[in-house]
Amino acid sequence: MTSQHQRLPMEKVFRDPVHDYVYIQHQLILDLINTSEFQRLRRIKQLGTTSLTFHGAEHSRFGHCLGVYEVTRRICDNFARNYPTQTPGDGGWDDKERLVALCAALLHDIGHGPYSHTFEHIFHTDHEALTVQILTSPETEVNQVLRQVAPDFPAKVAAVIQKTYPNPQVVQMISSQIDADRMDYLLRDSYFTGTNYGNFDLTRILRVMKPYQGGITFAMEGMHAVEDYIVSRFQMYMQVYFHPVSRSMEVILDHLLERANDLYQSHSVDAEATPHMLLPFFNNNFTLQDYLRLDDGVLNTYFNHWRDSKDSILADLATRFLDRRPLKSARIDNTTSQLVPELQALIEKAGFNSHYYTDINDSYDLPYDAYDPKMKKPRTQIELMQEDGSLVELSTVSDLVHAITGKVSGDQRFFFPKEMLNGSEQVDLFEAIYQTFQHHIQNDRLII
Amino acid sequence: MTSQHQRLPMEKVFRDPVHDYVYIQHQLILDLINTSEFQRLRRIKQLGTTSLTFHGAEHSRFGHCLGVYEVTRRICDNFARNYPTQTPGDGGWDDKERLVALCAALLHDIGHGPYSHTFEHIFHTDHEALTVQILTSPETEVNQVLRQVAPDFPAKVAAVIQKTYPNPQVVQMISSQIDADRMDYLLRDSYFTGTNYGNFDLTRILRVMKPYQGGITFAMEGMHAVEDYIVSRFQMYMQVYFHPVSRSMEVILDHLLERANDLYQSHSVDAEATPHMLLPFFNNNFTLQDYLRLDDGVLNTYFNHWRDSKDSILADLATRFLDRRPLKSARIDNTTSQLVPELQALIEKAGFNSHYYTDINDSYDLPYDAYDPKMKKPRTQIELMQEDGSLVELSTVSDLVHAITGKVSGDQRFFFPKEMLNGSEQVDLFEAIYQTFQHHIQNDRLII
Amino acid sequence: MTSQHQRLPMEKVFRDPVHDYVYIQHQLILDLINTSEFQRLRRIKQLGTTSLTFHGAEHSRFGHCLGVYEVTRRICDNFARNYPTQTPGDGGWDDKERLVALCAALLHDIGHGPYSHTFEHIFHTDHEALTVQILTSPETEVNQVLRQVAPDFPAKVAAVIQKTYPNPQVVQMISSQIDADRMDYLLRDSYFTGTNYGNFDLTRILRVMKPYQGGITFAMEGMHAVEDYIVSRFQMYMQVYFHPVSRSMEVILDHLLERANDLYQSHSVDAEATPHMLLPFFNNNFTLQDYLRLDDGVLNTYFNHWRDSKDSILADLATRFLDRRPLKSARIDNTTSQLVPELQALIEKAGFNSHYYTDINDSYDLPYDAYDPKMKKPRTQIELMQEDGSLVELSTVSDLVHAITGKVSGDQRFFFPKEMLNGSEQVDLFEAIYQTFQHHIQNDRLII
Amino acid sequence: MTSQHQRLPMEKVFRDPVHDYVYIQHQLILDLINTSEFQRLRRIKQLGTTSLTFHGAEHSRFGHCLGVYEVTRRICDNFARNYPTQTPGDGGWDDKERLVALCAALLHDIGHGPYSHTFEHIFHTDHEALTVQILTSPETEVNQVLRQVAPDFPAKVAAVIQKTYPNPQVVQMISSQIDADRMDYLLRDSYFTGTNYGNFDLTRILRVMKPYQGGITFAMEGMHAVEDYIVSRFQMYMQVYFHPVSRSMEVILDHLLERANDLYQSHSVDAEATPHMLLPFFNNNFTLQDYLRLDDGVLNTYFNHWRDSKDSILADLATRFLDRRPLKSARIDNTTSQLVPELQALIEKAGFNSHYYTDINDSYDLPYDAYDPKMKKPRTQIELMQEDGSLVELSTVSDLVHAITGKVSGDQRFFFPKEMLNGSEQVDLFEAIYQTFQHHIQNDRLII
Repeated sequence: MTSQHQRLPMEKVFRDPVHDYVYIQHQLILDLINTSEFQRLRRIKQLGTTSLTFHGAEHSRFGHCLGVYEVTRRICDNFARNYPTQTPGDGGWDDKERLVALCAALLHDIGHGPYSHTFEHIFHTDHEALTVQILTSPETEVNQVLRQVAPDFPAKVAAVIQKTYPNPQVVQMISSQIDADRMDYLLRDSYFTGTNYGNFDLTRILRVMKPYQGGITFAMEGMHAVEDYIVSRFQMYMQVYFHPVSRSMEVILDHLLERANDLYQSHSVDAEATPHMLLPFFNNNFTLQDYLRLDDGVLNTYFNHWRDSKDSILADLATRFLDRRPLKSARIDNTTSQLVPELQALIEKAGFNSHYYTDINDSYDLPYDAYDPKMKKPRTQIELMQEDGSLVELSTVSDLVHAITGKVSGDQRFFFPKEMLNGSEQVDLFEAIYQTFQHHIQNDRLII
Repeated sequence: MTSQHQRLPMEKVFRDPVHDYVYIQHQLILDLINTSEFQRLRRIKQLGTTSLTFHGAEHSRFGHCLGVYEVTRRICDNFARNYPTQTPGDGGWDDKERLVALCAALLHDIGHGPYSHTFEHIFHTDHEALTVQILTSPETEVNQVLRQVAPDFPAKVAAVIQKTYPNPQVVQMISSQIDADRMDYLLRDSYFTGTNYGNFDLTRILRVMKPYQGGITFAMEGMHAVEDYIVSRFQMYMQVYFHPVSRSMEVILDHLLERANDLYQSHSVDAEATPHMLLPFFNNNFTLQDYLRLDDGVLNTYFNHWRDSKDSILADLATRFLDRRPLKSARIDNTTSQLVPELQALIEKAGFNSHYYTDINDSYDLPYDAYDPKMKKPRTQIELMQEDGSLVELSTVSDLVHAITGKVSGDQRFFFPKEMLNGSEQVDLFEAIYQTFQHHIQNDRLII
Repeated sequence: MTSQHQRLPMEKVFRDPVHDYVYIQHQLILDLINTSEFQRLRRIKQLGTTSLTFHGAEHSRFGHCLGVYEVTRRICDNFARNYPTQTPGDGGWDDKERLVALCAALLHDIGHGPYSHTFEHIFHTDHEALTVQILTSPETEVNQVLRQVAPDFPAKVAAVIQKTYPNPQVVQMISSQIDADRMDYLLRDSYFTGTNYGNFDLTRILRVMKPYQGGITFAMEGMHAVEDYIVSRFQMYMQVYFHPVSRSMEVILDHLLERANDLYQSHSVDAEATPHMLLPFFNNNFTLQDYLRLDDGVLNTYFNHWRDSKDSILADLATRFLDRRPLKSARIDNTTSQLVPELQALIEKAGFNSHYYTDINDSYDLPYDAYDPKMKKPRTQIELMQEDGSLVELSTVSDLVHAITGKVSGDQRFFFPKEMLNGSEQVDLFEAIYQTFQHHIQNDRLII
Repeated sequence: MTSQHQRLPMEKVFRDPVHDYVYIQHQLILDLINTSEFQRLRRIKQLGTTSLTFHGAEHSRFGHCLGVYEVTRRICDNFARNYPTQTPGDGGWDDKERLVALCAALLHDIGHGPYSHTFEHIFHTDHEALTVQILTSPETEVNQVLRQVAPDFPAKVAAVIQKTYPNPQVVQMISSQIDADRMDYLLRDSYFTGTNYGNFDLTRILRVMKPYQGGITFAMEGMHAVEDYIVSRFQMYMQVYFHPVSRSMEVILDHLLERANDLYQSHSVDAEATPHMLLPFFNNNFTLQDYLRLDDGVLNTYFNHWRDSKDSILADLATRFLDRRPLKSARIDNTTSQLVPELQALIEKAGFNSHYYTDINDSYDLPYDAYDPKMKKPRTQIELMQEDGSLVELSTVSDLVHAITGKVSGDQRFFFPKEMLNGSEQVDLFEAIYQTFQHHIQNDRLII
């Protein structure tokens, strides 16, 4: 055990717009923040294409990771002050777990790359596996810092993130249906988008949170605060995360990377604009270091080069992405989705390659679910503790939560070029096609 | 006159965390926002290296430009509602000026490039000249949109930004000691840094603002609100914009670009990492299109390549910049600056090239000044209108403003590697040098 | 028609913590605010005994009334700017209705007295009837001001408040399930209690609000903002308005006034402490002027006198009220309510008059309901307008709203002296009684 | 030592709009809050007549006292965590002082009565002496609670408030130029008025605050935060506390009480409206219990009775006060004050008793002062600690603070009936008098 995980003589702070200050009390945490891998998170936006809908939401994963750390720190403080363990197994909080909890909180997103979900879709990377790799590979600065606590400390931190750590209190702090991660991102995304939907009463939730043998529970008196958090989360999904314009920009991004990959596989990429840092991914043969070089700016820089590509689809998609020219969309369902081939045919007639210029995109989320052992990935349910110590599951006492429990929310949309709705200024020889197309759309839905 | 500058049938909005909503009421404004040149502002941070000190401050110039537009729109609304001109020259507001004011507000920063001041320093570009060029060159999308109002409209908008437009009310809205630009950036930078210092009462200032023949004045009853704005501005400079850590990162950036340029001029840049988009600037021969391709991500991508450079100074500076390893600093003055050569000699002895690893950096600002015809660039002073219509200059009625009027504030600092203070873990053969160095620093100042 | 309802040459403002500024644009509105009847609202708390639970909530009805006016003014502005009527009956907004709407908004609560609901319960007053009387009786300053617009103007304003005014747009602005009254009080009570639950996005709701023939509707795109408002309202009821401690203080207040009335009817009130201003109410024979003399301070002053009453129940209840000594409570339902007589018997044994020291109190609210013609007072439902102009009722498109539609929420509680739970320091001869009592309470509920 | 000052097993909270939560960790504090004397503070407005200018500012002294307690608690927490004393006299914080500090913070204003300054002016009471009496008289509930800690504990708490307590750290926490009292009221009054002027960065100030032998100092790096606090305080005085309308209402209140007193002394008060609770004060012979019966509502109730007085001046002043009919005013100085007798003569001619209807009112405050041993009440100056431990006085390093150090700010005003400016609707036989009067006023000042 080294001085690394001892308390700093005087705490240090980061000024944070969401939590006011983030308090750093261990040299270890400071050293982790100063690693190259962690600093790289400054160059990866938290919300990807959402900033193209909500222009304030340009914040990076760096601030979010500090925020999750800070929420976890406050949970530990509360637990240590009010619920310290007396005898092993009494369900109290053992403050020796603090350091592993703080590290897992800080580093839980360290494996994220630029435009995470889209990048993973095209290049088959996996940010969770990469997180574990960054924690445990001796080559990373993060691993070197963690190892100074103990040789098995990196693996412990990884176990928390992988939910295999034996203490369920620590695991649930970092990942459960009401964890430090979700609590920070709701508040943070709400702050930076400038919407109110993600606001809930963090201080009150932290107050009613209590450890017990099975993990973390909440005092009954805090039921409405927990309910409010679930509703806020639901609303952020509905209003912000599932916004059709952001999803349409993600569709463009997906097809842009797909087109580049297709061209590369067929050796058609222009020589001058070789995307050196992407080659290992086109070749499906990349190292951790290759991955850690990437960030939003690197991808955008290649897109910028591709604006001049001889391939007109690549050039056009790159321009649409950088200059924010979103696709349009309409909701579809099981019935109306049969119309899609017909619409794609019209789009082809209007001069677009429908493979790259249309898409179907689902946005579904389960806002809350009670524990269901039959599910593939059963979720830990939220439980409230009554005065006499008995537990009740949240949706049994909250009408609002009950209303959205176990229900997938969101929609399925068909995306297509804006030109199909507005026509094009220069050419009206497609006018009839546009008219036919538009007859199939009403009140934001396909109609038959 | 085309439909371009007519009102939209229904206003559109952008959700903005600072102003709640930005209201767009003309197709022209919407079209300007959708140009490639304007969208590019999303990829240029408003505060450059300040986000490395205040991690929330990752906002781009895009949001700020919308904000300046919005503040200007509100000023116009207030003027049109309460002070419409009746007869020419009566000092009232002529609402026909609204469109040129709104365009100038929206586009006043369109010429900014990545890491503006540092880039200009090394490559001798000029963002103000480039702004005018973007407005008036027929090749830009911005110019094409503006021309639709009238052939001379782009030049009018440029004239407002260059302060040569005949109507002083329009000019002072956009640039004066209390203009829409400053008002937006104080509030915005305050919001994103998470500090309070830049907060002032925008609604009240907009209420007491009034047009008159000589430009813009403020009702006497609003004196304390204007005073509060000046004090807020002073404090943002002291606390945020002049922060020594951000300045130290700017010093690193400056020397990194300088080193790259030096190497390029001496043909020593590695072939593989050719910074294609920077070549026109190394060659001092760039087009407007070359300039418009640049953004923060492009520069960072080259820095990322340079981490692997065979030139150890370039590689080290690139790493220090991307991984945020700031220099340390101490205040100097006319007397203690004579110590600098001696300290640089020590730094060389400790193994650093003092040309690239040290610097002197001044941060001075004039928080407010009354009009002084003898100055090179006399500023328009802030004037308050009394009940009987007579004007008084702000600093004559506010003790607080008087205290900082005409005084340059800020400091001069000597920047040097952190290793000189902390020593280095591996090597202590420099221990004696470090000791000598440290004797010259006390209470954040050089001492003799 | 006099200058009274013309626009002021320059608008006046009230600084308001909720809406920033309240803008006054007519002399008429200013004159109404300056009446004796309106100023009296400063001395009546908006939330009565709630300030004894949430100490910040000491705000008066005065600010709320200004706020309802301001929200209404903004609705009118939006309607006039975006939906002006072109031909009668086209469903657009006729701005000639503005003045009657603003006056109704400002004055809708003018008939409220101190501790409204409790006072009405004991003395059989009716604040709605009194509001109409204040508007229409020639003796009031309010009536005198209103009459200056037109002789029938007071009656028109009263008609809006009574929902008999012919234009449903005006009526629904002031009273419907999403009106200026509710919108202001949710935001205001949230601000002053310091809770977040009442927050919703007012600006967005005002944006999506539109007039149509049948009254007021909301653009479909604003569905989630309306949903958020309904949920906020539900949560304010659950968390703030139905708080058991505030209700317990209301129970004390109710019994205190009841005891005073009982004593008065039996001629047992002490001579010295004659509550002159209450006599007309004890005598059930009061004038409008008698009513307008009352305020919270007047009642509290009598309570203060009654602390010294020879009647020990009156003195004790007065002291409990002024010194905030709440009763305790437990939830009951149809089954457990049969226990109440038994518990009351125990309470009597412990020395309390159970008539004055216990009570059953229901708090039920219908957070939202669709239109139901079979109801006694059918509510106007909230309708959303789709792109093609068709309307859908809110709960058919919102799962959250659906979950609480038509459901009464709240609880029924049995209130009793705190001593029954804590025992009393001096006396333990009641210990056995307390024990028996406590066996009937578990997890905040009566149990059998 | 009893359980009274031991920590509660689980902390309790008060929801507070300014500090989010106020945390109660000792039974003692809870018991003090529940005393009759403390609960009475709910019925006394913090800002008196200021709520008649800023309608949101209706908050009572109750919340402020909780707030001062909470700020003090946070200071103690920071001191205990970061600067615990090791050996007596080392300048560190001895946490045994916590309880006396918390009690002094909570109770420092317990002696305030309704409309404090005006009441004291007319009836020669002294809220500081009364505070000490409430703490130390065995008859009060507060004293009974405090005595349970130790027999000399009430006197200790009183000593802190009287600044005679030996430990200067405790004294300066509660009263100095930057103490918990001032910090809470600036934030609180700012919140409730809805102005921003009183906002400063409390968290940052608490962070840079440190104990030392001489009391409390601030780390040099926090200089601008302290500066910002001083400037905020200055601005709250200028913008809120010295507002001419509030002062004019105070003038009316003062003359109303004076008139009542004059009438009482000459036995002319109406019998029916005998102000029982004021009699001991008219008679200049009151007990502590008499004093503790008073609150804002009691006074207002008497004013309400006096509306009907046969004395027309008493009735008119009572009506002006309750119905908020402020006097007008103009600034005067040493030169123009000679005009006052002439103006008073005009006012008499226009039918007003100038003794009761005019006044001269000064509002002066010293926003900050360095220590000056020659002053009558020398103030503790604010000192900053440099890295090497040396201290510097604030105004020597802050230009802004220097500008207002030792300067009295505020103005002197002459108050007179509004009728002198507006004329009166009914009567124009005074028109010539009004004209003459108005010639002496320009730009809010008397002119000669």
